[in-house]
Amino acid sequence: MRKGRHAQGAAAAMTYCVGILTRSGLVVAADSRSNAGLDHITTVRKLALFERPGERVMALLSAGNLATTQAVVTLLTQRLGSAPGPHDLYAATTMFEAARMVGAVLREVIAHDGEHVQPHGDPSATFLFAGELEGGRHRLFLIYPAGNFIEATPETPFLQAGETKYGKPILDRVISHDCSLAAAAKCALLSFDATMRSNLSVAPPIDIWCYRAGSLAAAVRVDIQAGDPYLAVLREQFGAGMLELFQRLPDPAWAPPADAAAAE
Amino acid sequence: MRKGRHAQGAAAAMTYCVGILTRSGLVVAADSRSNAGLDHITTVRKLALFERPGERVMALLSAGNLATTQAVVTLLTQRLGSAPGPHDLYAATTMFEAARMVGAVLREVIAHDGEHVQPHGDPSATFLFAGELEGGRHRLFLIYPAGNFIEATPETPFLQAGETKYGKPILDRVISHDCSLAAAAKCALLSFDATMRSNLSVAPPIDIWCYRAGSLAAAVRVDIQAGDPYLAVLREQFGAGMLELFQRLPDPAWAPPADAAAAE
Repeated sequence: MRKGRHAQGAAAAMTYCVGILTRSGLVVAADSRSNAGLDHITTVRKLALFERPGERVMALLSAGNLATTQAVVTLLTQRLGSAPGPHDLYAATTMFEAARMVGAVLREVIAHDGEHVQPHGDPSATFLFAGELEGGRHRLFLIYPAGNFIEATPETPFLQAGETKYGKPILDRVISHDCSLAAAAKCALLSFDATMRSNLSVAPPIDIWCYRAGSLAAAVRVDIQAGDPYLAVLREQFGAGMLELFQRLPDPAWAPPADAAAAE
Repeated sequence: MRKGRHAQGAAAAMTYCVGILTRSGLVVAADSRSNAGLDHITTVRKLALFERPGERVMALLSAGNLATTQAVVTLLTQRLGSAPGPHDLYAATTMFEAARMVGAVLREVIAHDGEHVQPHGDPSATFLFAGELEGGRHRLFLIYPAGNFIEATPETPFLQAGETKYGKPILDRVISHDCSLAAAAKCALLSFDATMRSNLSVAPPIDIWCYRAGSLAAAVRVDIQAGDPYLAVLREQFGAGMLELFQRLPDPAWAPPADAAAAE
């Protein structure tokens, strides 16, 4: 109920990111709203791709302090192809190693800026990191502000960052490791819809990336704008369907009779 | 993503409370789980009633530091009928005045204990307060840790306290000021179900109070235990209905074709 310090903080971006690991691939999505208070609202891409078709594809989704997340993405981008330089995502031989690089660069940025930012707001950041390297399998990680991370598994096939709670119930009910990429993408959008209804600081465009396992390319990247017709259909049919379902459920036997007060 | 200080705090009770204001009455509900860490879990009633049938009925639901909320309820109970003593809910002439009394006692407890508790955890508390006094109308308030409060209105017919986010989407979709008390009670349980699925520290029994406007008595109070057959039916039918609804919704045209990778 209480606003944390970062609610008033410097360039804090309340975001929602979700990543889904299925047998057939990956779906990740991030909103594009950044706000440092209600009077400074901008659109910022929070999904960065690092790709060498046929060899590696990686998606990095950012939540948290915008200065921190932009610095991390900038440093990672600058260092691509720099090996034997540090933290070269193109030189990583596994997704695990790549995720460690992201964590290391995050620690580097916090070491550089953290104590200076702290008096003004929360400098921390969280990332989702997903992708596949040749010879490996497709993987999905949640990288914590401390730079360590956890990995999605068939039993826990989705991970979230940022404003996670409103959008979790629909994922809990629908997502499994065996669902199709289309179902995962549909559910990611419904999860965003629930979040956007409740938190104004999460807003379209929604950046979605769908990756088919083993393809090492050919990922679909879509930008869902506020007026997107598919999003509109999804919202309308889901809302109407939920109401209908709710009305079909039995009333509790112990509830006071309907509108008896009005009838009296 | 970061745990607040109160997560490790002294006797912090993560709770979920919801109150719904409809044209025909009030429905309020609270869980009964208290935990100060995972190794000290107890069942605590978080719904207190103050009633003089025919004259006034009031329900107070607590979220936050358990020592604080119990002290507030104890002091309010001790002072019932004490007028011209302070903060006598039986002497309040409006629900607004009664809500101010709750806020005042909360401030009194925080003034007494706050700075001593602070080093160990968050001393703060939040309340839902609902009821009706003879000659008034039925009303619902959310009392903040500062002791001030907001009121539910026909446009904003529900208020929540504690672990509010998981259970908000279903309320947003279903609740209106015109829904029946039975529908409000059913939706409150679904909102609890979504919360309990995601947060282990919110758990049955769920204490529900349904009040018919103008009755000044005859409220229904129900204790929903973990194995309650109605809750089980609701969970099962809602879960199955949601899956069915999800599958009926159209897939995004841009998603990669279903399981093409597996078919190759």
